[in-house]
Amino acid sequence: MNIFVVNSGSSSIKYQLFKMPNDNPICTGLVERIGLENSIITHKVYINSEEKVIKRVLDLVDHEAGLNEVAHLLMEPEIGVIQDPAEINAVGHRVVHGGESFASTTIITKEVKEEIKKLFSLAPLHNPANYLGIEVAEKIFTKAKQVAVFDTAFHQTMPEKAFRYAIPQNLYTEMGIRAYGFHGTSHKYVAQQTLQYLNNKNAKIITIHLGNGCSMAAVDSGKCIDTSMGFGPLSGLVMGTRSGDLDPSVIFHMVNQLGYSLDQVSTLLNKHSGMHGLTGFSDMRDILKSIAEGDKNAKMAYDLYAYRIKKYIGAYAAVLNGLDAIVFTAGVGENDSNIRQLICADMDFLGIKINEEKNNIRSKGIREINTDDARVKVLVVPTNEELEIAEQCFELLTEKATAAV
Amino acid sequence: MNIFVVNSGSSSIKYQLFKMPNDNPICTGLVERIGLENSIITHKVYINSEEKVIKRVLDLVDHEAGLNEVAHLLMEPEIGVIQDPAEINAVGHRVVHGGESFASTTIITKEVKEEIKKLFSLAPLHNPANYLGIEVAEKIFTKAKQVAVFDTAFHQTMPEKAFRYAIPQNLYTEMGIRAYGFHGTSHKYVAQQTLQYLNNKNAKIITIHLGNGCSMAAVDSGKCIDTSMGFGPLSGLVMGTRSGDLDPSVIFHMVNQLGYSLDQVSTLLNKHSGMHGLTGFSDMRDILKSIAEGDKNAKMAYDLYAYRIKKYIGAYAAVLNGLDAIVFTAGVGENDSNIRQLICADMDFLGIKINEEKNNIRSKGIREINTDDARVKVLVVPTNEELEIAEQCFELLTEKATAAV
Repeated sequence: MNIFVVNSGSSSIKYQLFKMPNDNPICTGLVERIGLENSIITHKVYINSEEKVIKRVLDLVDHEAGLNEVAHLLMEPEIGVIQDPAEINAVGHRVVHGGESFASTTIITKEVKEEIKKLFSLAPLHNPANYLGIEVAEKIFTKAKQVAVFDTAFHQTMPEKAFRYAIPQNLYTEMGIRAYGFHGTSHKYVAQQTLQYLNNKNAKIITIHLGNGCSMAAVDSGKCIDTSMGFGPLSGLVMGTRSGDLDPSVIFHMVNQLGYSLDQVSTLLNKHSGMHGLTGFSDMRDILKSIAEGDKNAKMAYDLYAYRIKKYIGAYAAVLNGLDAIVFTAGVGENDSNIRQLICADMDFLGIKINEEKNNIRSKGIREINTDDARVKVLVVPTNEELEIAEQCFELLTEKATAAV
Repeated sequence: MNIFVVNSGSSSIKYQLFKMPNDNPICTGLVERIGLENSIITHKVYINSEEKVIKRVLDLVDHEAGLNEVAHLLMEPEIGVIQDPAEINAVGHRVVHGGESFASTTIITKEVKEEIKKLFSLAPLHNPANYLGIEVAEKIFTKAKQVAVFDTAFHQTMPEKAFRYAIPQNLYTEMGIRAYGFHGTSHKYVAQQTLQYLNNKNAKIITIHLGNGCSMAAVDSGKCIDTSMGFGPLSGLVMGTRSGDLDPSVIFHMVNQLGYSLDQVSTLLNKHSGMHGLTGFSDMRDILKSIAEGDKNAKMAYDLYAYRIKKYIGAYAAVLNGLDAIVFTAGVGENDSNIRQLICADMDFLGIKINEEKNNIRSKGIREINTDDARVKVLVVPTNEELEIAEQCFELLTEKATAAV
């Protein structure tokens, strides 16, 4: 089954094509600068374990022009992987916000599209772009099932005490203000990989996604019971440019006493805060370099980043009332052994102890970095959101096929 | 040594008079509606373990008139406890915000007053009223040492990773935006009581102050290393009318998408949220009644209140890397056995188990409510901020006296 995975942004489209049940994509790509001059398509094809990269610069007026160009690349002589758009059986769309309407992956119908539209106000930056991707894919891959995979879906199992805020009742019931959580596709993927690795369906685990955005989830028997992002993707951990948790009264003070506009504060907290705000850098490698050069601010920022994660590990261990494993994933989580070391230091009270040597080994697979006598497993599990989207589409469609028989 | 403890609010003055080193005040009182018609003074005198209550309604134009009236009551025939204002050796003032300038109790000089004034912008509701109390007391108790006891002082031992936010560096260095924490006098008092009770100066404890305002502190060897309130008293736990922790993006959404003004949001989060916003009641006794009547909202709010505390217990256990005791104090913490039960349920992973029978016993002293086999002590320790203020004044002045010899 050919499953085409699409992540449509405001001026970009990321895509991967899977021949399921094969785990490796046969091509991947990125369209950038849509609607601007000199749009760029970077298209990679994997044939016989060789990578072939095609880069094209051209003017793509809109997402339809962009995806059309990609469809041509998929069928182009020599590098083509299909001969007709009809060979694509399903298009799996990443949709950021599913609100309370979508707790799982869903075949896109007219009604589903209406519902996604209703959620624009909750995710004004992402859902409109995701929606556009769906409309365009429907035109080009007319024979394919269109499927939506929501970033919030995995977190829909959270109990009310975890997702509600202590604000007037009607702001939840009428306005939908609650914690939704994000990065759900990644948390779900690594959680499932972890349960398989542990060979224990009922394990209590904490997944720690540290990329440019960062979030954590408490997962009990495969179900999310709490997560660090909330109504939007701003709260929780310290991120590349986002502040994470912050006393809301700071916002009132900045506007009322320091003369910021509310929009300036929003931009500041979303784009100029986090590691970038503290150190001038949002990339951990730059920050590690600064620390090595004796920069005290960089050291403090790094300590703060780790400290916030430690606190969430403790909080989630408490509400799980137990802990079998903590799992690091995504760019920083998979590659920065220093931050893993700092997070896990002095955590033996919770049963967390890592083996420095194992922590420093680099590898692409799942690896265990705890000491042999540790009560809690500490794992590094590479995430793969695109594969997870493809797998969820595959499962959904083969189920449906079976059900239809 | 006669120590007069003053808590001056915008239209009220609370006071207690201690004859130190005696722990029990010889009189206590409250002046209300200062600057309004029909101001009320409620003055209580304790002589030979009898309480005598005097209530007076009169027009008090300002704080000076109010405190003058109190001074008269202190000297009034039959109920008087002193004969001359000069008999007051020290006035201990509760000052809410000490910023980074004051890490301990301080004799008030001209410079100290200037410094407290500089902190008005950080605590615009409280510090000006506290300052006014100092100025008035200086006029009336001219022979007394004026002493400031800061609500933030106990938390000044927090490390930078605990008190900093992940926002641009200069907002801290130039504007003082960081977590300060409040309720410090209460946390310090119950922490010291606990260390004495445990007979262990180096114990790792978590103090849980649950009154109308609520906060927690992680205390290692008597020093605060983290606390749940931040820049202001809004963040952290769910409170009577305050939201506690909230994704800051909710504020942007309410203003940009729902049409609230920023002032409305501030009022909503400070005065109409918390238990009041969720249930219509801010008093736990009303909420327990609603739950008993089958009100699901009230049950959810109660669950949320407890859940937030559970998470902080876990977070602080993690950063303490150990836990000897958790301590409940203040109105709700001392009296609501149901909430203690709910908070401590399913927490055996951290070593917390309470004995239901012991939990239900009411008493005015320190009591231990954990099971005999629990690894962590669970204590109820009545707080006494006024006594702590008096004691800190006493210590400071006797130290100084000794130092001066």
